[in-house]
Amino acid sequence: NEIPHNEKLLSLKYESLDYDNSENQLFLEEERRINHTAFRTVEIKRWVICAMIGILTGLVACFIDIVVENLAGLKYRVVKDNIDKFTEKGGLSFSLLLWATLNASVVMVGSVIVAFIEPVAAGSGIPQIKCYLNGVKIPHVVRLKTLVIKVCGVILSVVGGLAVGKEGPMIHSGAVIAAGISQGRSTSLKRDFKIFEYFRRDTEKRDFVSAGAAAGVSAAFGAPVGTCVGSLTLSTFFASMISTFTLNSVLSVYHGNAWDLSSPGLINFGRFDNEKMGYTIQEIPIFIFMGVVGGILGALFNALNYWLTMFRIRYIHRPCLQVVEAMLVAAVTATVGFVMIYCSRDCQPIQGSTVAYPLQLFCADGEYNSMATTFFNTPEKSVVNLFHDAPGSYNPMTLGMFTLMYFFLACWTYGLTVSAGVFIPSLLIGAAWGRLFGISLSYLTKGSIWADPGKYALMGAAAQLGGIVRMTLSLTVIMMEATGNVTYGFPIMLVLMTAKIVGDYFVEGLYDMHIQLQSVPFLHWEAPVTSHSLTAREVMSAPVTCLRRIERVGTVVDILSNTSSNHNGFPVPLVRAGCGVAGLRGLILRSQLIVLLKHKVFVERANLSLVQRRLKLKDFRDAYPRFPPIQSIHVSQDERECMIDLSEFMNPSPYTVPQEASLPRVFKLFRALGLRHLVVVNNRNEVVGMVTRKDLARYRLGKEGLEELSLAQT
Amino acid sequence: NEIPHNEKLLSLKYESLDYDNSENQLFLEEERRINHTAFRTVEIKRWVICAMIGILTGLVACFIDIVVENLAGLKYRVVKDNIDKFTEKGGLSFSLLLWATLNASVVMVGSVIVAFIEPVAAGSGIPQIKCYLNGVKIPHVVRLKTLVIKVCGVILSVVGGLAVGKEGPMIHSGAVIAAGISQGRSTSLKRDFKIFEYFRRDTEKRDFVSAGAAAGVSAAFGAPVGTCVGSLTLSTFFASMISTFTLNSVLSVYHGNAWDLSSPGLINFGRFDNEKMGYTIQEIPIFIFMGVVGGILGALFNALNYWLTMFRIRYIHRPCLQVVEAMLVAAVTATVGFVMIYCSRDCQPIQGSTVAYPLQLFCADGEYNSMATTFFNTPEKSVVNLFHDAPGSYNPMTLGMFTLMYFFLACWTYGLTVSAGVFIPSLLIGAAWGRLFGISLSYLTKGSIWADPGKYALMGAAAQLGGIVRMTLSLTVIMMEATGNVTYGFPIMLVLMTAKIVGDYFVEGLYDMHIQLQSVPFLHWEAPVTSHSLTAREVMSAPVTCLRRIERVGTVVDILSNTSSNHNGFPVPLVRAGCGVAGLRGLILRSQLIVLLKHKVFVERANLSLVQRRLKLKDFRDAYPRFPPIQSIHVSQDERECMIDLSEFMNPSPYTVPQEASLPRVFKLFRALGLRHLVVVNNRNEVVGMVTRKDLARYRLGKEGLEELSLAQT
Repeated sequence: NEIPHNEKLLSLKYESLDYDNSENQLFLEEERRINHTAFRTVEIKRWVICAMIGILTGLVACFIDIVVENLAGLKYRVVKDNIDKFTEKGGLSFSLLLWATLNASVVMVGSVIVAFIEPVAAGSGIPQIKCYLNGVKIPHVVRLKTLVIKVCGVILSVVGGLAVGKEGPMIHSGAVIAAGISQGRSTSLKRDFKIFEYFRRDTEKRDFVSAGAAAGVSAAFGAPVGTCVGSLTLSTFFASMISTFTLNSVLSVYHGNAWDLSSPGLINFGRFDNEKMGYTIQEIPIFIFMGVVGGILGALFNALNYWLTMFRIRYIHRPCLQVVEAMLVAAVTATVGFVMIYCSRDCQPIQGSTVAYPLQLFCADGEYNSMATTFFNTPEKSVVNLFHDAPGSYNPMTLGMFTLMYFFLACWTYGLTVSAGVFIPSLLIGAAWGRLFGISLSYLTKGSIWADPGKYALMGAAAQLGGIVRMTLSLTVIMMEATGNVTYGFPIMLVLMTAKIVGDYFVEGLYDMHIQLQSVPFLHWEAPVTSHSLTAREVMSAPVTCLRRIERVGTVVDILSNTSSNHNGFPVPLVRAGCGVAGLRGLILRSQLIVLLKHKVFVERANLSLVQRRLKLKDFRDAYPRFPPIQSIHVSQDERECMIDLSEFMNPSPYTVPQEASLPRVFKLFRALGLRHLVVVNNRNEVVGMVTRKDLARYRLGKEGLEELSLAQT
Repeated sequence: NEIPHNEKLLSLKYESLDYDNSENQLFLEEERRINHTAFRTVEIKRWVICAMIGILTGLVACFIDIVVENLAGLKYRVVKDNIDKFTEKGGLSFSLLLWATLNASVVMVGSVIVAFIEPVAAGSGIPQIKCYLNGVKIPHVVRLKTLVIKVCGVILSVVGGLAVGKEGPMIHSGAVIAAGISQGRSTSLKRDFKIFEYFRRDTEKRDFVSAGAAAGVSAAFGAPVGTCVGSLTLSTFFASMISTFTLNSVLSVYHGNAWDLSSPGLINFGRFDNEKMGYTIQEIPIFIFMGVVGGILGALFNALNYWLTMFRIRYIHRPCLQVVEAMLVAAVTATVGFVMIYCSRDCQPIQGSTVAYPLQLFCADGEYNSMATTFFNTPEKSVVNLFHDAPGSYNPMTLGMFTLMYFFLACWTYGLTVSAGVFIPSLLIGAAWGRLFGISLSYLTKGSIWADPGKYALMGAAAQLGGIVRMTLSLTVIMMEATGNVTYGFPIMLVLMTAKIVGDYFVEGLYDMHIQLQSVPFLHWEAPVTSHSLTAREVMSAPVTCLRRIERVGTVVDILSNTSSNHNGFPVPLVRAGCGVAGLRGLILRSQLIVLLKHKVFVERANLSLVQRRLKLKDFRDAYPRFPPIQSIHVSQDERECMIDLSEFMNPSPYTVPQEASLPRVFKLFRALGLRHLVVVNNRNEVVGMVTRKDLARYRLGKEGLEELSLAQT
């Protein structure tokens, strides 16, 4: 649980999203003016945005798929021709060199753009989007530049032959698309289309980002219900549907059969028919056992990756080194693949098989090397082959060696500075050992009808993925949808739950681990169970800096500039007497104060009555979300003596909590309403403190009870 | 919008559920004592309960299915033999008489048990469960007696040949099972198993009822994800999975093929294969048009049913009359079916068809009467036949007549005093006109390959069901799961959304209409859009009766007995000076006061310091949920002079809202936290009023802006 040497990470600064900041006076006035027609216009815009998110996400997925298919096909053909040539006349080491160089150079480009241009595009982006939806924004995470780097990066990593998938990054891509479209402008392109201005606030943006992430999942797995993690709304679902439909239509046309709509996702598990691959109640204990294995292997994967990540944080933080590491992994992956293909003597008849690039190598004519099909293929195709190839297509030795090697390769690969997902490698590892398990079972039971290795490959894939990422609900739905079979839902669910329980016993899930390694103040769904004895008074930050309703500009500037207390919300007490003396009047945010200062909404001290409101809600929206820092705003000495009237801009009825309320109660309020600041008051409604995200996120249930974490600033 | 003559309904008394009542001092103390082990025990119990809910719901569904299959089969065989006999020698009117009498007598039994024993078991129960999950409990809705009547009632209505389905009632059945198991006792059976006592409070019970309803949907449609209405949790999903799995296993064994697991639900739409029934983008406008038709027909259905319900409320409220009406409908249904079969000349070759009870009637040998397949079958089978029978199996005239007749029969049937659902009749009407539509289209396009009538039957079914019940998200998922095909999800969603938009233009959805007719204080997800100008002060109830921290027993009894103000929550102010003078100290509920009075937790006025707590949390739990009325508690004159100390039992930090907060804000707080009482305070934290469910539920967005409804008491 101790995380050494993460001072560097603790100094990172995240942005807390504020789902409640809209409640200032200007906004309330606008809301009061909303009539039925205006509301309907907003609703229609919402649906249009969701449709656009779906279409664009689907198109991006198509683009990735088609480019990867062509580039990878080109690479495999070149290498295959080379191998075929050198197999006869000797000198296969040239082929290895060619393969490794090709891979390393492609990965180099992919790694360079990520490391030097946009480091936040590294990895699958799922932890980052999880944080965003939780309310913590990692800088640059939903920018257009990130999307471009992500898409190019993922193409290059997959083509470069790394043990990665292109599915995870689709979730990040969908989220960026959603964030961009819903705001009707792009800061990267410096274009403001002046549309959708209503949606320029954290709550709305979050909802769209959630729809975008769902659209991404949908495009990746053909699973529109897949993101059903307790927050599925009709518009989100609509975006998902549009996304998978767009992908399906475009890919069907691309593959020349526009009528069949058979590609709902980037990866399709293929049809599992009841007749061929049914299961019986007696098999359920076997599946649960596979879940246990998946949980243990997943925990091992995560533990190895944890050490690796710690190593990377300490020693490999310079971009050049990161690129070199990525190239090294690419070369090693090619080498391992080559050596294993070379050493394998698993020949299978080529007739009737659907292998895309059959490598004959040392096999007899009309036969191909079976090991090559797993390495010499995009991982997506390998997974589907493992699910559906007829019994006997793989030698147990091949599968065993493959599992072992691929496990370490995938573990080494996750966390490299390239854009890539861990879903497909996990599925592939699981499918390989699952199939091996099925073959053994079939051998033990002397080839009983029910021991179809494909079914066990599916369960193994679920177990391994569940053991690594520890999702249960959404993964069950995704896998049910990807297999197109409701009947398999029950065993898949059992396997995923078992894998989670077993895995959680050892170590956290991969995404949660990485979130915690980055010291993100992440709020879970519920407060730790043993935290009922803590009260708001004990967790809150105090004392709080208060502002008077009519405050001197100089005081405001000084408070905002004070780096030691970088508060983001300031209670405004009822009377001038200062905090703790009279009741709460309102709450004003740092971002609102910044806009007020920037537009110099000041009045001379002498004629307070002449105050004019010169600010509109639009001024706040235009500044959203990148409010300038206080240092960039120049306030003259004369202006410092002016006054600023906060009463028209503050939130007049902020949520409060009594100081005796227990932590779970505070937590529930905070989480249910999506707050950023919660003012703690005493019985006389006097401000005694403030609870922020960080105050709540630092409590965690450890092995010996409640623990406090160190978290980064927000 | 005006609902005349519902004074009778307004006098009904519903119970508001209280998801926040657990927050009294005793409970807080218990929570503080919870450690990791205790928490884990509770969690394990939770999963065990969910598994039991799933298994029992699945078994109940099996029971209904098997009994209906056998009884209906028996009935059809008897009638068929009779018809076959009289077709040759004339005198078919005897057959009609036999059929009508059989139906009427079966329905009579079904109606009698509902009307005389448990009227709340009438209908599908979906509106009632919707209310329960919303926070309003209709009396008797989750009792064991209701379940028994419901199950018997639904069997008898389906066997009685009414235009009803057995799917809707499964949701109610699942909910009752969940409520019973999770409390570990049954008041109907007067048994308390002393288990699961931790779950004896509204919040927990609600979660289990939600899981039970999901298990019901899952068993009905083989759709475990189907209740994904924004509140799917893993344990709910687990219950659903177990439920469909149990049903599947038992029915597979019953049908003699234990290996294939091909009956995931009571109704299975059969497999829609991509190859045979794909769709293209060009067909989407056609589907949308069908959605429009479905919306209009659905609105017509609801409007007719509305008038009928008003008529029933006014004139048919005596149980005897209700039974007579049900018998009349049963006889008319049989007669209409018979006449239509008799008049139809639509003969189809018997070879290669899968009709269960083929009626030859006046057809040539080796042929059967096609009209008879729709009427002479359980509605579930008719639906599947309409989806999957080969093109040409139905004559357009047959379908047209059937749609017309069945539409009116189904409309007349919904609202009868029998247990029955409207899902299947809606699907059947839609499938019939959808297939008719497909046939016309095929005729117009001269039999193009893409105009498969089965596909249009599916879309018609979706459109009609959507037009009647107006669900979109959950229905899309249910229908996607029931067809086992993700590809159809997109057009189904479009059809359902169109049907909803068109239908909503005319009249509300059927369930919402019935909920509103019963004046239930139902809270929608969000406050009406135009309500931002209302503040808490304007919507709250005031003045509020407050209690002092140490109160005279007589005063408490008098306040509770005062029928004019049947408050359920009483704020306790900070000092004795009475409300409006000092800050809020706590909140105590009527139910808690009742328990205190019942156990006579009094102290003599003289020695206040000698107060002893004699009550445990268990005493509150044992009394839950049927707290006795105040009238049943005897308090002597001496006792009236005693004092009662509320401070140990009240909720010490109730949620409050400032009086200037806008209605949507109050609404959001109320809804997000599942409150029953929300204390409104002023700037000095003094109680100025109280917002309850009824205060919020009465505002509705009408055609001309905000309207206020009349609602029943809670």
